[in-house]
Amino acid sequence: MSDGLSRRRLLGASGTAAVAGVVVGATGAYAASRGNDAAPGGAPTSTEAAALALDAAIPFRGEHQAGIVTPAQDRLHFVALDVVTKDRDQLRQLLEDWTRAAERMTAGAEAAPGGLVGGGPNRAPEDTGEAFGLAASGLTITIGYGPSLFDDRFGLASKRPAALQDLPAFTGDQLDPRRTGGDLCIQACANDPQVAVHAVRNLVRLGFGVVAVRWSQLGFGRTSSTSTAQATPRNLFGFKDGTNNLKAEDPEGLAKHVWVAPGDEAGGGVWMTGGSYLVARRIRMHIEVWDRTRLQEQEDAIGRDKKEGAPLGQAKEYDALDLTRKGPDGRPAIPTTAHVRLAHHSNLGGIRLLRRGYNFTDGSDGVGHLDAGLFFLAYMRDPGAQFVPMQRALAEGDGLGEYIEHNGSAVFACPPGLHDGEHWGQALFG
Amino acid sequence: MSDGLSRRRLLGASGTAAVAGVVVGATGAYAASRGNDAAPGGAPTSTEAAALALDAAIPFRGEHQAGIVTPAQDRLHFVALDVVTKDRDQLRQLLEDWTRAAERMTAGAEAAPGGLVGGGPNRAPEDTGEAFGLAASGLTITIGYGPSLFDDRFGLASKRPAALQDLPAFTGDQLDPRRTGGDLCIQACANDPQVAVHAVRNLVRLGFGVVAVRWSQLGFGRTSSTSTAQATPRNLFGFKDGTNNLKAEDPEGLAKHVWVAPGDEAGGGVWMTGGSYLVARRIRMHIEVWDRTRLQEQEDAIGRDKKEGAPLGQAKEYDALDLTRKGPDGRPAIPTTAHVRLAHHSNLGGIRLLRRGYNFTDGSDGVGHLDAGLFFLAYMRDPGAQFVPMQRALAEGDGLGEYIEHNGSAVFACPPGLHDGEHWGQALFG
Repeated sequence: MSDGLSRRRLLGASGTAAVAGVVVGATGAYAASRGNDAAPGGAPTSTEAAALALDAAIPFRGEHQAGIVTPAQDRLHFVALDVVTKDRDQLRQLLEDWTRAAERMTAGAEAAPGGLVGGGPNRAPEDTGEAFGLAASGLTITIGYGPSLFDDRFGLASKRPAALQDLPAFTGDQLDPRRTGGDLCIQACANDPQVAVHAVRNLVRLGFGVVAVRWSQLGFGRTSSTSTAQATPRNLFGFKDGTNNLKAEDPEGLAKHVWVAPGDEAGGGVWMTGGSYLVARRIRMHIEVWDRTRLQEQEDAIGRDKKEGAPLGQAKEYDALDLTRKGPDGRPAIPTTAHVRLAHHSNLGGIRLLRRGYNFTDGSDGVGHLDAGLFFLAYMRDPGAQFVPMQRALAEGDGLGEYIEHNGSAVFACPPGLHDGEHWGQALFG
Repeated sequence: MSDGLSRRRLLGASGTAAVAGVVVGATGAYAASRGNDAAPGGAPTSTEAAALALDAAIPFRGEHQAGIVTPAQDRLHFVALDVVTKDRDQLRQLLEDWTRAAERMTAGAEAAPGGLVGGGPNRAPEDTGEAFGLAASGLTITIGYGPSLFDDRFGLASKRPAALQDLPAFTGDQLDPRRTGGDLCIQACANDPQVAVHAVRNLVRLGFGVVAVRWSQLGFGRTSSTSTAQATPRNLFGFKDGTNNLKAEDPEGLAKHVWVAPGDEAGGGVWMTGGSYLVARRIRMHIEVWDRTRLQEQEDAIGRDKKEGAPLGQAKEYDALDLTRKGPDGRPAIPTTAHVRLAHHSNLGGIRLLRRGYNFTDGSDGVGHLDAGLFFLAYMRDPGAQFVPMQRALAEGDGLGEYIEHNGSAVFACPPGLHDGEHWGQALFG
């Protein structure tokens, strides 16, 4: 354990391009590793730096919350919570406590200074311990507030942004109330699942008596890139997903489609400037049916070829989608029901959003199939103007519709980033 | 994508020691990466080799099945299946087909030569595709047969080993039938969860009409080391787990406690020589209660200190457990109800077993808590002589008992490894 390499973990990411995308203070990862007292043994080589980057700490504070345009980490633990207290001050205090703990954990530290054993034998430890010795692992913790938080319980009705509305019902929705809604959400992304789970668990622990878990979702593989430096991953249909996603390197696109801007503050939403709205949808995929579907039908439903991910009739993944192109039979090369056509911004008056979803597998469904799918997460400036029309178009015509089922749904207002000295309680209660 | 590094992924493992443990044909990992045509760009450096090792392929064939003493990979997808056909030949054929697909996938290839698109547009692809482009990632696929497989459906009653018996009920069991039993099991371990999920899914797909998923379990972090080269991980109680586990480097211990030997073939079990019995237990941890328990009580329940993992009253993790040592108050330093005392071989007439468990988090329990715990997997020579007395001792007296709940259970006979040209169908039907 004397050299630098031995103090860190090598963690998952799709290819070197992805690694380059998360090189954030790589050498700092030595120090960010939990439970290490020693100084680094030396500067890392470039190869070590690439590996270290997966361990590195992502800055917690800034203009926007981390975990939105941050190059998507490989693992997710997402939790929706209900507030169980009626005491406004308790909720405000929790948001302050959460800020402190989240900042510590994203830096690779325990949830509280007492850490694993600091409180002594007669107190419960202030950190649950399962991430002790693990690196910061690119952990980001992103908070959001659901529409229900702005009811009459906490005096927040006047703070509710007009854009924060429960989603309407869509054709084909099969929503399970046990996977839907929530007063609050926490999205923890990391390159090590144990670090993401640890973060959620410790925040939930801090909230005992104030909040309770409504539902949670583990994601094992990212299904979207949020940076041009990342390779496009595959979803559980076996197709590349998110090729045309908005990317961190497109600040104009983000300003237009993702970040809430001055002028968007209809209702009580002035505190949301610099924030973003998150739509979460649990999309069960009927993979057993899909897996017995012939290749052409799969490609027609998606609108891309399976191997390269190129738009149908074109050659390469990043070829600009040509929706006018005809196939040899004179019909559109990309069928009129293809997912990429219906979801494409040219089909939706220019609408785009930032996708940040994950593959999931949650045991079996009790009738012989795996309960697997895509946990869709997308950030946007106004769900009613972006997600709603897009999902309406998809729900009506999408060739994928017969293979999927939306069985969970929620929407959250994710506030802007915090500057030095600020905490999450201030925007709502300050 | 022109150098070696760009063709592989950096994947999770706990520290360099773990990496060293899985250096199996590191340079071969270049070729093992799915979807790569090109030859390696050059020999890797030692640091690259360490990272590559997490991508490497583990040999599928050998005296014993891989995935038992193989240094425990970081991620698990486990599935228990029921046979839904009554046709013995279909089952035999499936075991042969599974062998071929498992060997291909562990080498980093698609499930069948046709792969992603080889069957052409009018056939369903022979591989589901979500692991295309990912490395072999240390994948192991381990098969086991439950007691129910040897009923009167397939003419296997005479092949049933006497040691393969359903487990008895234990004090405190809260078994959910939907997480219990199974005619067959597949344990897929890998350093990339998407590779493990892909393996299970493709085997299940091959079994359509012959088998159906009974239950499945995803594990996100290993809780045991199976090699002295691996650092000891932490479970969701925040404690180091498995310090005294049997290890791959102890062939005498494995021969005595893990591998079925000539002379063990009571009943019809002659085909099990070189195999091992697997006990799987889904152990829900009441982490919310645990997290509010004071440190001393936690350490007394386990019998080790939380930070170092040393036996209570001793200094270091690997100090030999001294069960006779007294504390300053004259009482045993390791309480009489401590988990490590009750589970220690000196307390059980020398009984040991090889643990290979994983942490899990499966959403929430519907009443405000995370559904989290430890998916206990252990390999042994005779469950009735090893797991049963150990679990009886723990179920009666274990200080951890009030914090855990066994809600799933199964036992399987895992046959020996395959030599060249052999397949899984032969031992049972050959």
